[in-house]
Amino acid sequence: MQRLRLDLSYDGSGFRGFAENRDVPTVAGHLRGALERVLRHPVALTCAGRTDAGVHARGQVVTFDTTAGPDTLRLRDSLNGLLGPRIVVTAVTVAAPGFDARFSATSRTYRYTVLNREVPDPFLAATSWWVPEALDRVALDEACPPLLGQHDFSSFCRRPRGEPEASLVRRVEAARWSERSGDPGVLVFEVTATAFCHQMVRSIVGTLVEVGRGRRTPADVTAALRARDRSTAGQLAPPHGLVLWAVGYDGPAARGPRAP
Amino acid sequence: MQRLRLDLSYDGSGFRGFAENRDVPTVAGHLRGALERVLRHPVALTCAGRTDAGVHARGQVVTFDTTAGPDTLRLRDSLNGLLGPRIVVTAVTVAAPGFDARFSATSRTYRYTVLNREVPDPFLAATSWWVPEALDRVALDEACPPLLGQHDFSSFCRRPRGEPEASLVRRVEAARWSERSGDPGVLVFEVTATAFCHQMVRSIVGTLVEVGRGRRTPADVTAALRARDRSTAGQLAPPHGLVLWAVGYDGPAARGPRAP
Repeated sequence: MQRLRLDLSYDGSGFRGFAENRDVPTVAGHLRGALERVLRHPVALTCAGRTDAGVHARGQVVTFDTTAGPDTLRLRDSLNGLLGPRIVVTAVTVAAPGFDARFSATSRTYRYTVLNREVPDPFLAATSWWVPEALDRVALDEACPPLLGQHDFSSFCRRPRGEPEASLVRRVEAARWSERSGDPGVLVFEVTATAFCHQMVRSIVGTLVEVGRGRRTPADVTAALRARDRSTAGQLAPPHGLVLWAVGYDGPAARGPRAP
Repeated sequence: MQRLRLDLSYDGSGFRGFAENRDVPTVAGHLRGALERVLRHPVALTCAGRTDAGVHARGQVVTFDTTAGPDTLRLRDSLNGLLGPRIVVTAVTVAAPGFDARFSATSRTYRYTVLNREVPDPFLAATSWWVPEALDRVALDEACPPLLGQHDFSSFCRRPRGEPEASLVRRVEAARWSERSGDPGVLVFEVTATAFCHQMVRSIVGTLVEVGRGRRTPADVTAALRARDRSTAGQLAPPHGLVLWAVGYDGPAARGPRAP
């Protein structure tokens, strides 16, 4: 028995999220189906970050246990042959003992893309939120520092059902906007935290874009954090602009891929 | 009566090409439908370059005559509201007298994207040709200069049906490969010519990729041009890697958009 790590990239457009859900297409459902077909035994998947319906991933990490041998390159190519163009296994590696995609992760980075141009772009339609009104870039930048550090993000999260006492305290390590080089108006918000609560990035982006539109001030972001009340944040940004970009792991036992 | 110019960008994935064709979805069919709905009179479209099924465009140019007034910004936004995310009108301008999208054009530029990596990429699946075997970049570059200048491209074109005498002589002004910055393995072939014959770019790219794979030499490109025989060229590259990138117009009467 060994534990394998898969690094995954997927276009979430046609999926109802990562997590399996009876009768609807999910990333985990497709992936588990392909794995079980290749490995010929049941597989239980653990992922670093459960993405919602329509959300994409570049650096999703999944672990599972298998009795199969360590021919990881061939497994990668077999899976890609079965999964088709929308889900790609970018690497298969033997995980260090005790490594777990979810619990070993020490940080997650998401990117959210806003297309801030007068006209939309057919090639970015599936991966960005088109906002035609010119956003105030200075205000967008000024609204980021209040997010840094440890806060109760109750105003920016959907509280898990049946868990009224769950902590929504999270530590944001980085949060910044940049313009994609050579692509004027393609604004990318990148945010890193130890972990995120549900809908947190989309809620933050929805609020920041209202700051960029001049409907809120950067100080309102601080006030919303303090309020711990969801009605003080902006609308959720749509899912298709969001990508789970990277997952960080620390420590020698879990420092990413090693050769089988 | 005035002539308007539309600049168009489209994701050709779901279309059977630009030109209208009974009962199948085409870019021109959708565009004409939207125009006639907004303008309330029949419209006849002329385009700079007819793209094949699955081929995309960034800089397609279309002209047509209308009796409508010159509220071009509003026309752009009305059309985009009707056309949806896959076809976008990036500009509407009043054309100079005598300007014709097709006959005034003095050059066309196409880009073809090859994803030359071991694993595919879900976000480039619709707009690039995935070639997993490592291509010889030096050979790719060396195969470009033979294409420059005026040649009979019979070996690289589908001869128009019923036109056995049509000239397939074209003048290639530029042809080069580059790697997209920050995206290792994303190889972009850009080619500019006064005009192209049918399937010419895809036939050239299919041949060049065989050079990159080591199955042909750069000298074979020269030999194929001289042979004027389609069997001497490589396989057609698939359509979804191709984009009509830009159309050039010369002269004061046709030098692109002006204010209405």
